[in-house]
Amino acid sequence: MYRSHTCGELTRSDIGKDVTLAGWAAKIRTMGGMAFIDIRDRYGITQLAFNDGYNPELLKKAAAIGREFVIQAVGKVAERESKNLQMPTGEIEIIVTELTILNSAKTPPFLIENDTDGGDDLRMQYRYLDLRRETVRNNMLLRHNLAQAVRQHLSTAGFIEVETPVLIKSTPEGARDFVVPSRLNPGQFYALPQSPQTFKQLLMVSGFDRYFQIVKCFRDEDLRADRQPEFTQIDCEMSFVEREDILQVFEGLTKQLFTTVRGVDLPEVPRMSYADAMCYYGSDKPDIRFDMRFVPLNQVAQGKGFGVFDNAEAVIGICAPGAAVYTRKQLDELTDFMKRPQIGATGLIYCRVEADGSLKSSVDKFFDQEALKLWAEACNAKPGDLILVLAGDLHKVRKQMNELRLEMGSRLGLRDPFNYKPLWVVDFPLLEQDEESGRWHAMHHPFTSPLPEDVPLMNTDPGAVRANAYDLVINGVEVGGGSIRIHDRALQERMFELLGFTPDQARAQFGFLMDAFEFGAPPHGGIAFGFDRLCSLFGGSDSIRDYIAFPKNNSGRDVMIDAPSALDSAQLDELSVSVKKG
Amino acid sequence: MYRSHTCGELTRSDIGKDVTLAGWAAKIRTMGGMAFIDIRDRYGITQLAFNDGYNPELLKKAAAIGREFVIQAVGKVAERESKNLQMPTGEIEIIVTELTILNSAKTPPFLIENDTDGGDDLRMQYRYLDLRRETVRNNMLLRHNLAQAVRQHLSTAGFIEVETPVLIKSTPEGARDFVVPSRLNPGQFYALPQSPQTFKQLLMVSGFDRYFQIVKCFRDEDLRADRQPEFTQIDCEMSFVEREDILQVFEGLTKQLFTTVRGVDLPEVPRMSYADAMCYYGSDKPDIRFDMRFVPLNQVAQGKGFGVFDNAEAVIGICAPGAAVYTRKQLDELTDFMKRPQIGATGLIYCRVEADGSLKSSVDKFFDQEALKLWAEACNAKPGDLILVLAGDLHKVRKQMNELRLEMGSRLGLRDPFNYKPLWVVDFPLLEQDEESGRWHAMHHPFTSPLPEDVPLMNTDPGAVRANAYDLVINGVEVGGGSIRIHDRALQERMFELLGFTPDQARAQFGFLMDAFEFGAPPHGGIAFGFDRLCSLFGGSDSIRDYIAFPKNNSGRDVMIDAPSALDSAQLDELSVSVKKG
Repeated sequence: MYRSHTCGELTRSDIGKDVTLAGWAAKIRTMGGMAFIDIRDRYGITQLAFNDGYNPELLKKAAAIGREFVIQAVGKVAERESKNLQMPTGEIEIIVTELTILNSAKTPPFLIENDTDGGDDLRMQYRYLDLRRETVRNNMLLRHNLAQAVRQHLSTAGFIEVETPVLIKSTPEGARDFVVPSRLNPGQFYALPQSPQTFKQLLMVSGFDRYFQIVKCFRDEDLRADRQPEFTQIDCEMSFVEREDILQVFEGLTKQLFTTVRGVDLPEVPRMSYADAMCYYGSDKPDIRFDMRFVPLNQVAQGKGFGVFDNAEAVIGICAPGAAVYTRKQLDELTDFMKRPQIGATGLIYCRVEADGSLKSSVDKFFDQEALKLWAEACNAKPGDLILVLAGDLHKVRKQMNELRLEMGSRLGLRDPFNYKPLWVVDFPLLEQDEESGRWHAMHHPFTSPLPEDVPLMNTDPGAVRANAYDLVINGVEVGGGSIRIHDRALQERMFELLGFTPDQARAQFGFLMDAFEFGAPPHGGIAFGFDRLCSLFGGSDSIRDYIAFPKNNSGRDVMIDAPSALDSAQLDELSVSVKKG
Repeated sequence: MYRSHTCGELTRSDIGKDVTLAGWAAKIRTMGGMAFIDIRDRYGITQLAFNDGYNPELLKKAAAIGREFVIQAVGKVAERESKNLQMPTGEIEIIVTELTILNSAKTPPFLIENDTDGGDDLRMQYRYLDLRRETVRNNMLLRHNLAQAVRQHLSTAGFIEVETPVLIKSTPEGARDFVVPSRLNPGQFYALPQSPQTFKQLLMVSGFDRYFQIVKCFRDEDLRADRQPEFTQIDCEMSFVEREDILQVFEGLTKQLFTTVRGVDLPEVPRMSYADAMCYYGSDKPDIRFDMRFVPLNQVAQGKGFGVFDNAEAVIGICAPGAAVYTRKQLDELTDFMKRPQIGATGLIYCRVEADGSLKSSVDKFFDQEALKLWAEACNAKPGDLILVLAGDLHKVRKQMNELRLEMGSRLGLRDPFNYKPLWVVDFPLLEQDEESGRWHAMHHPFTSPLPEDVPLMNTDPGAVRANAYDLVINGVEVGGGSIRIHDRALQERMFELLGFTPDQARAQFGFLMDAFEFGAPPHGGIAFGFDRLCSLFGGSDSIRDYIAFPKNNSGRDVMIDAPSALDSAQLDELSVSVKKG
């Protein structure tokens, strides 16, 4: 071993000990006859001291050391003159008697500090240096701690971790698969799993009763800022359960994780139907850290001769507390924000509730104090509040108002990332209809069971069928989702039929699962958590990329190793595939 | 929840309780006015009792239930008349008051019992039923327990679990890669990792200090009986360590696993050089559960006019204890075994040491008692022992004698699978030469460091350079292997050069790693354990497939889901690839 201690463990009580440390030269200060090097490793930083009077040769050697050199220092722990009580090792230093350069280092292309000068591209290219920064390393430690806590909790609760295969079969349903040509089976391809869904259901048929896995999944999608082609799920499934059981078990897991890893005690997780979530928040993943619920204003706002309202399917308001002080400029900014193409509102109506209770709106021409008072009452607005109103097509207004609500929440400082407000959203629609083709799609996936009482509706009004599904939403982020599954062959066949599969297609793709249902399939259900997302949430960050050791960029490239890359033709020949020229 | 208790937990102390159980009908016995159903779940089996006198309707229902039906039974726990003390629940039964069929089942294609009548193909096709058998389920439970114990031990020892990417870059060195066409980067491909080797080394450069991961790896090889295209490794790496540190840490892990999971206390793990392993066992993974070491007999066996010996590079004997009783027929069998093309010996010489000490050999024509006595002395053979001798080319004789030794070990019952004898094999050659092309190949991989004292030999006698590498061998099975890595750019470049890379090729494939070595790479090393293999070893089995939930067959197919499979042309078009007709 190149060291007797780590760089984070020596304190006052070690004074006088002979020690050997190894690590990176983080900071080097030379001053007259003295030099100090901060030696850093994963565990901390310790000050190495060199003194002309004591050992001039060594001082010369120390002065030649550059940033990020890997060094080994032998010496004695001594009390420090100018102490740094901010750090555990801040009261001591090492009077060095031997210094060895284990490896030299070129000057890093950016500062290895929490506030670095490196841009995103540079940091990704030299990700191994980026990971050396404390903030990034702490993200990985958080991820490690979360993973261990998940496994410990679930193992203790009787869940068995089972590895499901990575080389599986492509199924055109859903997102695009990544595929892998099979050399041993020319012309055939494996697919990488988008989730272990069918395998975990088969494990339930096998009687495994409680399964989990922290598992890599793959989706070949056009990448958005915060999507990765490979991502990690906490994947779980249970037998002989109803929805209530699953919610209880995984609320338990969630609470345990917050207690263990963040020291936060979560309250009981409230539940909200999908219908209510859409009605009051315009989103199936409402951020309930703040209220600002949608208020339907059709009744009080229509029929006053204001065409925008009168011709609208929906007039919806929210009440932003304390925002009556917003200046005209701020309100214009907000209007511009809403008019951006990503949101697409045509305008934004406001009404200030002044300190004296008087009301001042952008549509005073159509609404007198009396009329505006009805708005304020409906919105439960108090003096100092700001009512913001959108009107139009119900579906669109909800989407737009959701954006406005979140924006106002941020502006008003109501979205503290460390204030965790979880929520179960339940009773999702089973199906959604593609407007153009009229085809039904599974909102969750084709294995989701309808609510038992809604099964008859599958034949009469498929759009009205509610799924026995649930999402765990924390701070407006969908952290997990799952459902009670279909475990009956006939119902599964009916589901595939609704989704437009011919019986042959259904059999070709999922015959093995439907066969399995005929050999004694228990009632079962499960959930999957987005682990990258969960990590970023625990870290108080929006970016999952910061919680992945070696992420890919928005074109799906790993710029550090330069992947993907071209193959030579011999390799392609062996696989019986060729590249098409575009 | 469909149950109040599992099928494995009710005992005498629960008598009188009202309970609800759910599970599979394992055995159904009807007799006159009574019926018994064994209800089974992952946790155990409980007897359900139905009685004509008590409830004739229910009895009729019970009689209609078939094997593997999923049922739910409500009833009262009662003492059983004929107890089965072999099982925890054997003293009680449930007097059923309500019976619900949760799902029916077709007759399974094979018996769901430990001794099943299902052949390999059938069990693989219906793997979800095969997994329902207790033996197979116990294998998965063992795997789960091992995985948790590994993580717990390593986490406690300060190792951080970091997930490395699955979509990486293809490197022609080593085994064949599985590749994945990139839709977003037409004409380019990702590769699936054969191991996270370069990434874990980068994590050391990042200062992670101690890393581990239980991780899927992929190798597109022609499959042998016990190879899988996807397999699982326990992958580990440490910084600032020398070989001794790694051996200590992972000997600790191994001992801990045996104690926790098998209740076995392993002794200190002995070490053997590769040279000794080859010399005494003819194998780099000797099975040291039994002795029967190779004895060089050149000196005592040559020069007696027996051409087979006289013309041989090596004459090697082993002494099979107590095997002098072997009949002529048994010895002929053994000779035939050795002559099979897989082994390729031309013959087998024997010498019995009779009870009276006299010696009887198959080459008495050339060797008198005096001459044979020298054999017996060299082999330390005692009355009742059998000396077996092979002669020929040293390399070939070692290989053949290894097979013979293992065969004799098995025949003599010296290879109890639950008698664990671990061994570190060290000082492997760094390189091996391809006989035909004369090219050097890395015996381990190109990142393995030579022993420091052997570095100069790289320029003068590459074949003599020993690697700073080690394998953990248990009972003749290579369970893990690793090395101290190169952490110096110049040495790594020299290594690539020896392996026949041009500087451009080395830079194109591993430039990122060599660059990283210039920014402060610490000395580091690691190890990887074959997790599937480790599980089978703990289970006392030779077959890794029995310890994988959903294995592939020898053609790399998953016959249950029928993968790999053909893709439709639209999917291929999107990926800019096409299939070549053979």
